[in-house]
Amino acid sequence: MLADPSSKYLPYPAVPFPADYVRRWPTQRTTVAPTWLSTDLRDGNQALVNPMSNETKLELFRALIKIGFKEIEVAYPSASEQEFKFVRSIIENGEVPDDVSLQIITPARPDLIARSIASLAGCKRAIIHLYNAVSPVFREVVFRNTQEQTIDLTLNAVRLVKKLTEEETARSGTHFTLNYCLETFSQTEPEFTVELGNKVLAEWGKASPDDKVMFNLAATVECAPSNHYADMVEYFSTHINQRDSVVVSIHPHNDRGTAIAAAELGLLAGGDRIEGCLLGNGERTGNVDLITLALNMYSQGISPHLDFSNLSEIVALVCKCNEMAMPVRYPYAGQLVFSAFAGTHQDAIKKGLDAQAKRWEEVERTGKGTKYWSMPYIPLDPKDMGYSYENLIRVSSQSGKAGTAYVIKQTMLLDLPRRMQVSFYKIVQDESERLGKEMTAALIKSTFKKTYCIETKPIGRLFLHSYRLFPLSPSTREPFSLMSDCSDDILQLTPGDKDQTIMRFEGEISVDGTKCTIGGDGRGPVLAALDALRSNLDLTLAIGESSSQTINANNLPHAKVATFIEMFLEGTSPSKSGIGSIWGVGLSSDIAMSKCRAVISAANGLVGDTKFPVAKTISSPRSAISQK
Amino acid sequence: MLADPSSKYLPYPAVPFPADYVRRWPTQRTTVAPTWLSTDLRDGNQALVNPMSNETKLELFRALIKIGFKEIEVAYPSASEQEFKFVRSIIENGEVPDDVSLQIITPARPDLIARSIASLAGCKRAIIHLYNAVSPVFREVVFRNTQEQTIDLTLNAVRLVKKLTEEETARSGTHFTLNYCLETFSQTEPEFTVELGNKVLAEWGKASPDDKVMFNLAATVECAPSNHYADMVEYFSTHINQRDSVVVSIHPHNDRGTAIAAAELGLLAGGDRIEGCLLGNGERTGNVDLITLALNMYSQGISPHLDFSNLSEIVALVCKCNEMAMPVRYPYAGQLVFSAFAGTHQDAIKKGLDAQAKRWEEVERTGKGTKYWSMPYIPLDPKDMGYSYENLIRVSSQSGKAGTAYVIKQTMLLDLPRRMQVSFYKIVQDESERLGKEMTAALIKSTFKKTYCIETKPIGRLFLHSYRLFPLSPSTREPFSLMSDCSDDILQLTPGDKDQTIMRFEGEISVDGTKCTIGGDGRGPVLAALDALRSNLDLTLAIGESSSQTINANNLPHAKVATFIEMFLEGTSPSKSGIGSIWGVGLSSDIAMSKCRAVISAANGLVGDTKFPVAKTISSPRSAISQK
Repeated sequence: MLADPSSKYLPYPAVPFPADYVRRWPTQRTTVAPTWLSTDLRDGNQALVNPMSNETKLELFRALIKIGFKEIEVAYPSASEQEFKFVRSIIENGEVPDDVSLQIITPARPDLIARSIASLAGCKRAIIHLYNAVSPVFREVVFRNTQEQTIDLTLNAVRLVKKLTEEETARSGTHFTLNYCLETFSQTEPEFTVELGNKVLAEWGKASPDDKVMFNLAATVECAPSNHYADMVEYFSTHINQRDSVVVSIHPHNDRGTAIAAAELGLLAGGDRIEGCLLGNGERTGNVDLITLALNMYSQGISPHLDFSNLSEIVALVCKCNEMAMPVRYPYAGQLVFSAFAGTHQDAIKKGLDAQAKRWEEVERTGKGTKYWSMPYIPLDPKDMGYSYENLIRVSSQSGKAGTAYVIKQTMLLDLPRRMQVSFYKIVQDESERLGKEMTAALIKSTFKKTYCIETKPIGRLFLHSYRLFPLSPSTREPFSLMSDCSDDILQLTPGDKDQTIMRFEGEISVDGTKCTIGGDGRGPVLAALDALRSNLDLTLAIGESSSQTINANNLPHAKVATFIEMFLEGTSPSKSGIGSIWGVGLSSDIAMSKCRAVISAANGLVGDTKFPVAKTISSPRSAISQK
Repeated sequence: MLADPSSKYLPYPAVPFPADYVRRWPTQRTTVAPTWLSTDLRDGNQALVNPMSNETKLELFRALIKIGFKEIEVAYPSASEQEFKFVRSIIENGEVPDDVSLQIITPARPDLIARSIASLAGCKRAIIHLYNAVSPVFREVVFRNTQEQTIDLTLNAVRLVKKLTEEETARSGTHFTLNYCLETFSQTEPEFTVELGNKVLAEWGKASPDDKVMFNLAATVECAPSNHYADMVEYFSTHINQRDSVVVSIHPHNDRGTAIAAAELGLLAGGDRIEGCLLGNGERTGNVDLITLALNMYSQGISPHLDFSNLSEIVALVCKCNEMAMPVRYPYAGQLVFSAFAGTHQDAIKKGLDAQAKRWEEVERTGKGTKYWSMPYIPLDPKDMGYSYENLIRVSSQSGKAGTAYVIKQTMLLDLPRRMQVSFYKIVQDESERLGKEMTAALIKSTFKKTYCIETKPIGRLFLHSYRLFPLSPSTREPFSLMSDCSDDILQLTPGDKDQTIMRFEGEISVDGTKCTIGGDGRGPVLAALDALRSNLDLTLAIGESSSQTINANNLPHAKVATFIEMFLEGTSPSKSGIGSIWGVGLSSDIAMSKCRAVISAANGLVGDTKFPVAKTISSPRSAISQK
């Protein structure tokens, strides 16, 4: 690269507006969709390393019809026999709905014009896309033509198109529209583009508001910022004659990465129609991407009249036909576009989804307001394009607690207490750094289950198979009745409620693979279980925070209670941020069982290498305990 | 997708300019590069499926320094131990040049601010990127804060940053700059952004033209067209206090595919600084791509003060660090961006390269004018980015003759005559359709050599090993002297010159693998060779167009003459477009040999299945010919 590139590259010339001219386009707003012209089968196809076969073109043509395109450029019929045949085949095989116009392109050469128009015989609605490059470098270097010669060449071609199309209309009734393309428009003197446009209009001689002439204002190469293109379009749009009989057609390319913006600003500047390709296929950096443009409009509440409800299917087809890969960060269509990895983003999305769900429920309940979309970081509802919310949050070592908590909520329905989120997130982060890779939802879930020993068969050093729990008479500490199964009033216990009755807990547990029974007493299941661990296994634990949650409470066969309990080794004092404490999780349809399991779950995290006193395990001083 | 999305998606709100306000940005023009902030190591890294290791971060950090970045955001030090360590390591290991500022990000939370500033101890120049989201949806849903509470939270954080940085400056002399990020700026009420900005300025209390406060105007999510972002920036830039003590920093994202445009328009609207990533890495659709932005400027003659002279190396590194693939149509960096497949494009590029070469030679010779770049379809000289011109033209079945001719010119130095280009292109097109794939330069070259039997050993049915050629006395038709070797005056023969002397040709050829000698007479080598084919092999051929070209004429050991000759079966009349005729090519340092070879080359194309008269081949009626 040159240290000073100013002598090699000339800046774009200014558009010759009067000094006091106030541009209109910066104050405009798009409120309706333009007409769309898909040129996937022509401009897109020409740019392919391996152009499509006619079978593939037909497959894509049908998809374009299904999406809702009413104008489709299908071929460059004078370029090859194959191209010519494609146009014939879709006309002759009745592939073209009556309300769809076929567009073909032809250079401004008599023999090629004749051949091109011949390809359209019998078509109902056709657009002749006649092009020649008009910028100084093309006139001077490529064609060695003056402006006058360029005009002559153009008008001769228009005259021939007019004659031949009128003959064809007389024969078969085809309706023809002229789409004259000022190729390299954006690099041409604005006054000359208008002069040429007006002469084409005059030569055509029959443009009317009901039968317009289209002018393709091609940014054949994107050579200047998008506002320059808008200026060019506004200049043309405000200077061309018979404006009400003209369609200003926008055809941006993406050399500077601003084709979408050029199209959007071009519409503000007077554009009526957009020419482009799905996913922006096309020579070099491609044409403007019609999917992004359409969904940009959609996200502003404007119907594009194109249907991308099943976006992933369309993307797959386009990628197949064009032998291209989909970049993961491509707007709307990329795989990572509706995913958040950063913790703060995840946290906001999680809150946003909750708040929106409540807001929408409120609208449904009251019939007041509208269910509008307002979501941190996600400008468009993924479901509108046929995506699920599954990938909204993805977890890497750079993610925060909210992401992991979200994944646990999505995959296991568990609402982790905030401090437990922090604790579990640290475990996930360590695991992610250790593995050096993304923590997928499946990996987070399996880490959760492993960490908290959530399995129906023994994992961890301690495992609770079954338990008995019964109140003791306060005086005698003798059982006076069996506890009933978990009942509705138990489910209504709120986190932090203290059990008042002294209870006896007898649990059948595995200790390092050996089944045994332990027993203990305490106020409620948790303290009784802790007493059993202390007296039978010499494991002295204390309780921090705890809470519980019902899962599927309205779906009884699947209803469960989850207990989350924070514990630490007695005598240690965990920090406020939870260092030194371990969480346990218990799941069961029985609340007491869920509590006991939560205790054992946390105990597993705290036992470390502790040697258990085998003798004590076998027989408890206070309970009738037998080894099995 | 909803048929009417207007109740689900609300359009962007207007920026509250007075009714008669005339926007400034649409009339501005960028003439100098902004300050660049690379956030590859922070914003980019946070978005990765697999975040970088600190070793990889260091590798990319060094590359960023080499490219020329003076402000680099290196970490989110309060997010993890690993991040914190990275900042410490580059400071402690002397990786940070004195003129480079390290930026770190911190949320507006006291504990995290303290930890973040602690990570920078001993750094020479640091930027504290303090952020909180300020838009209505964040205030209401995520933080449940009012505007007042948001201001309080922000000012408390600014106060703490001020205090802690001043303490650190007192300790180690680090110069600190505040970069306050209004996260979700583009979705926030413009008046509120200004109110907040002004209060931050007041709280900081020491902004000056020499020590500015930066405001990061983040389009955290791109939710509106690029002109809306420009309006937002202009509103902020024209309403903020102490404008000369403020850096307006532009931070676009690419959700609508218009991040580049938003950045470019944002600069017109008052932006001084751009925050982004190489190749646009970042959450979802990514941050704005700094490479495209810089090269866009460069292509307008503005030095970006960033060096991408070896773009492919930088691209490879970024792709490696980010585990991403480079889309083939990505501006500047994509593999197909400097390739043309369409025939008309190829033709124009070919002419453009020729014309520019002449123009530049003229500038060099005369010392007048400048060697400016003006090239159809190629807005930037690929060589400036370290690319060759090799892939400028690539040939598919959709390409035209110019492309194949260009490839032959590039790979074999041959300037095919125009009608031969058409003829050979048809052969290539058939081959491409037959193979169903791109015709690479190698494939085109091998097709050319096969078609025209250009080899030093026999290919095709006929092959000329050696020849003798001598003038005959016009009266006796007896040889009167041996022809001299090719001499300078022979090289000066122009195409179409007719040889006047009657000559005898004796050639040792292979016919279907059998060596034999044939002989004939005629005016010049071509007619004499034709006579030999007719009289010895019953092959009666006529000549169409012919021309010759010298190759490497100034490099004698490698100098060659190429003869191109069009022939057809006598009695047939080829069409104007060349159907029915066959071209032949002969290459030799000897012009007569090149002509004879060209005849045999064309004859090979015309013989088809012709049975040669074996007897006649062995002995010529007019020459002493013997089978070997």
